[in-house]
Amino acid sequence: MTRIVVDAMGSDHYPTPDVEGAVLAAREYGVGIVLTGDAEKIQPLLESHRASSLPISVVHAPEMLTMNDKGDDLVIKARHKDAKNSMAVGYDLVKNGEADAFVTMGNTGAAMVTALFRLGRIKGVDRPAVAVPFPTANGICTILDIGANPDCDPKNLLQFGIMGSVFAERARGVKNPRIGLVSIGEEAGKGSELVKATYPLLQNANLNFVGNVEGKEIFNGHVDVAVTDGFTGNVMLKSSEAVAKLLTEKIREAVKSGGPLTLLGGALVKPALGKIKKLLDPSEEGAAPLLGVNGLTFIGHGRSDALAVKNAIRVAKNAIESNLLSAIKSAIEESLKK
Amino acid sequence: MTRIVVDAMGSDHYPTPDVEGAVLAAREYGVGIVLTGDAEKIQPLLESHRASSLPISVVHAPEMLTMNDKGDDLVIKARHKDAKNSMAVGYDLVKNGEADAFVTMGNTGAAMVTALFRLGRIKGVDRPAVAVPFPTANGICTILDIGANPDCDPKNLLQFGIMGSVFAERARGVKNPRIGLVSIGEEAGKGSELVKATYPLLQNANLNFVGNVEGKEIFNGHVDVAVTDGFTGNVMLKSSEAVAKLLTEKIREAVKSGGPLTLLGGALVKPALGKIKKLLDPSEEGAAPLLGVNGLTFIGHGRSDALAVKNAIRVAKNAIESNLLSAIKSAIEESLKK
Repeated sequence: MTRIVVDAMGSDHYPTPDVEGAVLAAREYGVGIVLTGDAEKIQPLLESHRASSLPISVVHAPEMLTMNDKGDDLVIKARHKDAKNSMAVGYDLVKNGEADAFVTMGNTGAAMVTALFRLGRIKGVDRPAVAVPFPTANGICTILDIGANPDCDPKNLLQFGIMGSVFAERARGVKNPRIGLVSIGEEAGKGSELVKATYPLLQNANLNFVGNVEGKEIFNGHVDVAVTDGFTGNVMLKSSEAVAKLLTEKIREAVKSGGPLTLLGGALVKPALGKIKKLLDPSEEGAAPLLGVNGLTFIGHGRSDALAVKNAIRVAKNAIESNLLSAIKSAIEESLKK
Repeated sequence: MTRIVVDAMGSDHYPTPDVEGAVLAAREYGVGIVLTGDAEKIQPLLESHRASSLPISVVHAPEMLTMNDKGDDLVIKARHKDAKNSMAVGYDLVKNGEADAFVTMGNTGAAMVTALFRLGRIKGVDRPAVAVPFPTANGICTILDIGANPDCDPKNLLQFGIMGSVFAERARGVKNPRIGLVSIGEEAGKGSELVKATYPLLQNANLNFVGNVEGKEIFNGHVDVAVTDGFTGNVMLKSSEAVAKLLTEKIREAVKSGGPLTLLGGALVKPALGKIKKLLDPSEEGAAPLLGVNGLTFIGHGRSDALAVKNAIRVAKNAIESNLLSAIKSAIEESLKK
């Protein structure tokens, strides 16, 4: 049976959404779940959801990593042999083959650093990357890196391209994924020094590389994967979220302050706009994979609810069943032979 | 009398919007206009708008720079002593003191390169930057650089901060403008190597530096100026535009496909949404200044209509009247004394 570790102490409102999402996933997807965290807090929740017949077990981890864990302090907690936090305990289960993937809604930095120390990197990968699904006009574009690596070199970006391509194909079911390189201007000669040096590497890799892309191409759905450094990717992510939020707020304001007929109109269009909200809702996609570490790892939003946790577990399940990890290992190995 | 050069051959539909915008501006703002471009095409337009009593003159420039002008070819056309294109002729008028500012809706790259060769840089400025106004929840945030310099060093970003601050104060009327540094994470230690090295420079400059900012802070209006390298800035600009477009299209689709009541609702909210469209409309702001060259230069969208051209001329007029250029020179000079 597929077994997925869920960090019960991850979300902002832990452990409720984390445990409830795990219960929903165990019921709906028939996967085995291992919850790591404070057993005293987890057990009553499981009982209240009558989960005793479900394949859910609890591994007690009395400590947890929070947004306050960073720098050297985080490194110590992440690497300590006998670390007792819910992330370290969870990753160790994956490392020891007792589970197939790790899912957390916790601090992204803590999840990344702990993954690096507990699971290590895939051979040939210099820098693991966080890959985030962006909504487009006709589906999803996976953008990586989204913040794990603020400073990258061309080889890092090449590896992001290879891992992103395998991820889109295996976990998202895209055939021959189209890979774009985030730049300013579409021509090969345009962009930063990093982009100009990366372009030929992606072109000569065994990828369906379509060239440079800008916001227009990404959000119009012209590529399935967009490769960039973690600084640019994170700025794109945060700006896109902020613009979408600003726009929807301005629309709400305009409708509210527009008189009775406008208000009526607003009420009439509201159901149709629910679809848009869903499109922009991170809980739909659930979690972002950390690609390049030697074990399947998925990191979701701290503000996730039970539905988002359930969806994150579904994403992990798809990755397990499509052998994502070994496919990435093979693709990286293949690229090193060149 | 304030005199502004308008490149009559700039916009996608040149010379009509360019000349019509100039006529509108001369009427409304009482500024003198010098149109550079093909006199045979410009004169009939002026006559059809009964502009003979307005302070508009034409300086014939038989050639023009287009999107096809780039690389070495562009450099030759930009720097040639006897260049006869409408940009070079226009910049020379500013350089020779026959006009106070130059406004074009033409190719941004051509406008920048030609400005560099005809006007030169302000003493102490290593790299001129394009500063673009972004709409926020409560006004405008000027972001620079937006594409002139894909690769920057910390000193470049410091100069962008100084120039952006003076621009916000003088041309936008913001008192003690709040300056942010685009990064990933708000704390001082977060971001790329470039950002980490730039942070103390901005902190020690004579600026109202508020620290690192992300999309949330920018679009919520927490800063008046956001400083970044041209690669990141351009990616932000293009992504923001693309997200806004995607969202409005999805809303339109949802309303259209939602049945008669939803359609009715859509019709009722439409007038209120017009305000939002205006918020996102580049023609409202007219043009982006190229800061750091030794002369006032404003570059607008190729797709500008007459209204956008008129607004661009208004922006130039404000900059002239507030002594933007000499204020930037003083601020840069001051910063060099430190």
